[in-house]
Amino acid sequence: MLNDLISIPALDRSEQSKFQAIVDGKAKPPQALGRIEELAVQLALIQKTTTPQITQPELLVFAGDHGLTRSGVAAFPAAVTVSMVDSLLAGKASANAFAGVVGVKVRVVDAGVAADLSDRQDMIHAKIAMGTADASVAPAMTREQAVEALLAGGRITADAIRKGADLICLGEMGIGNSSPAALIISRLAPAPLETCIGPGAGHSPEGLDRKKAVLAKAAARSDATDPLEVLSQFGGYEIAMIAGAVLACAKAGVAVIIDGVICSAAALIALRLVPQAQDYCVFAHASVEPGHRVIMQALDARPLLDLDLRLGEGTGALLAVPLIKAGCAIISEVASLQDVLDAAQ
Amino acid sequence: MLNDLISIPALDRSEQSKFQAIVDGKAKPPQALGRIEELAVQLALIQKTTTPQITQPELLVFAGDHGLTRSGVAAFPAAVTVSMVDSLLAGKASANAFAGVVGVKVRVVDAGVAADLSDRQDMIHAKIAMGTADASVAPAMTREQAVEALLAGGRITADAIRKGADLICLGEMGIGNSSPAALIISRLAPAPLETCIGPGAGHSPEGLDRKKAVLAKAAARSDATDPLEVLSQFGGYEIAMIAGAVLACAKAGVAVIIDGVICSAAALIALRLVPQAQDYCVFAHASVEPGHRVIMQALDARPLLDLDLRLGEGTGALLAVPLIKAGCAIISEVASLQDVLDAAQ
Repeated sequence: MLNDLISIPALDRSEQSKFQAIVDGKAKPPQALGRIEELAVQLALIQKTTTPQITQPELLVFAGDHGLTRSGVAAFPAAVTVSMVDSLLAGKASANAFAGVVGVKVRVVDAGVAADLSDRQDMIHAKIAMGTADASVAPAMTREQAVEALLAGGRITADAIRKGADLICLGEMGIGNSSPAALIISRLAPAPLETCIGPGAGHSPEGLDRKKAVLAKAAARSDATDPLEVLSQFGGYEIAMIAGAVLACAKAGVAVIIDGVICSAAALIALRLVPQAQDYCVFAHASVEPGHRVIMQALDARPLLDLDLRLGEGTGALLAVPLIKAGCAIISEVASLQDVLDAAQ
Repeated sequence: MLNDLISIPALDRSEQSKFQAIVDGKAKPPQALGRIEELAVQLALIQKTTTPQITQPELLVFAGDHGLTRSGVAAFPAAVTVSMVDSLLAGKASANAFAGVVGVKVRVVDAGVAADLSDRQDMIHAKIAMGTADASVAPAMTREQAVEALLAGGRITADAIRKGADLICLGEMGIGNSSPAALIISRLAPAPLETCIGPGAGHSPEGLDRKKAVLAKAAARSDATDPLEVLSQFGGYEIAMIAGAVLACAKAGVAVIIDGVICSAAALIALRLVPQAQDYCVFAHASVEPGHRVIMQALDARPLLDLDLRLGEGTGALLAVPLIKAGCAIISEVASLQDVLDAAQ
């Protein structure tokens, strides 16, 4: 099953020069729409058409809890994960507000929240376990659980695409999850652990020192560098599912918008497993969290937005949706320069 | 009449700490939505409410021609201005494509196109003259024309607001207008002329050298530093009207999104006349054109987007609309952290 998820052909670039010529030939100075033009070509390649469009964008927010919070890595109590899930389900979270602005449907997935959420309506129930183990003392999950979560993320995403979603935004909710992200980034970028650790949702200087000490202890426990092994040693269930979601988008030929540092760490796992899946990825924004820059350098990627965001929930991914749509509109709808010059005769 | 347009009270900041506290108290780490939170407070202040909203955003594209093109400052023939105006009116330009994506109505204004456009339907006819004079040999316009254009821009904008527009995006179309922009920026920032000149819509190295020589000749003709005098010596009719539009938005208490380097040069004129109008301005994006950075430094402003745009037409302003709406949605719709923490008990 994992072999199936990771068998992704490279993006067909045989029509790239044709798509590029169409964009270049629009009624504007060459490259005058900068990165929007890059998105136009990327979406044309992904959708294999000169008139790409986005009609049913969907945000999948994967939620999970982290045993590392028991060692004091997070500024908020783990119970806040459940409250924020309920807030998302009630349409009262930041992601809902942004989704309303940009016209995106929001689905929330229980990947591994440490509470029984089986009574929550309108939620996708895919819980692997009641949160991960404390990675500072033991592997966060077994390798079997890691694979199970990857596959679940892939299945949930493939389902959404089968039901018509033509752009997937990825987001997460999980108190403490900037800690597993830091460990993953450090091992897979790779980069020194201290360059990957930031304040996350907020920390006092003492809190940040404690976080660094706990993560150093976790890192010392395993020298894993294999993506799946890193995921099971240090990861989270929401992170695993997001990695699976990235792969499912690439496999289905659908563009995927990666939110901030947690989602990008998940994408890093996916792209270390299947590098060619990156052709389907759009990195939404430059997170304030320092590990994000490390990932962007490792992947030679450049995020679209730089708005000092560090919330998660997919908020940054949502704000990138109009940019993707603008790219589609440029290649699909705008007159050619030749038409305009002919009219000027 | 001009005294009326420029008599703008300072933004009432008496409720700023209240609005800031509401945003700070939302269910998210402090400042985790970065610049979107700044927009939330700015829109609350402008609309004088804890629930600001944007329901009728409108783009005004002001078009004009420039006598400087006869001295060879532009890479495209001046007749392209008319063709692009027709393309905008036909809904086939880049701005129309973006406006469709973000749900903004587009109006096109003949500020001073060098052609008879009186037969164009659905256009706002406000032509001051058939293009400006060649500013390398004579003032671009008289002081009376400059004032007339400022007032016309203000009147057109006030009309749009009276009809319900609650967010104004400003854009322009005018072959050659990065040249008057460079002269205006140099004189009003102020900054050395050469730091304000870029390739505009595109130039060979020889073309750029010619542009620099022509603009140096124009600059040598007048030592004006008074905003109105700079406008009449070096400006354009579309630039003058955009300056008037900025002032009209501030006067009416409506937020205004400034597009790229040309619109920002126009805003610079407006803000040198009435500095407090800046509280109503949002600078949409960092233009590739070098003069834009000079303006941002002079105004201590930070653009929202950085997408390598340099098209004009208001394209960048349109892409900033969802960000403004997101700011409104944060303060208007999102649950408070206290509610979420209470639920977590």
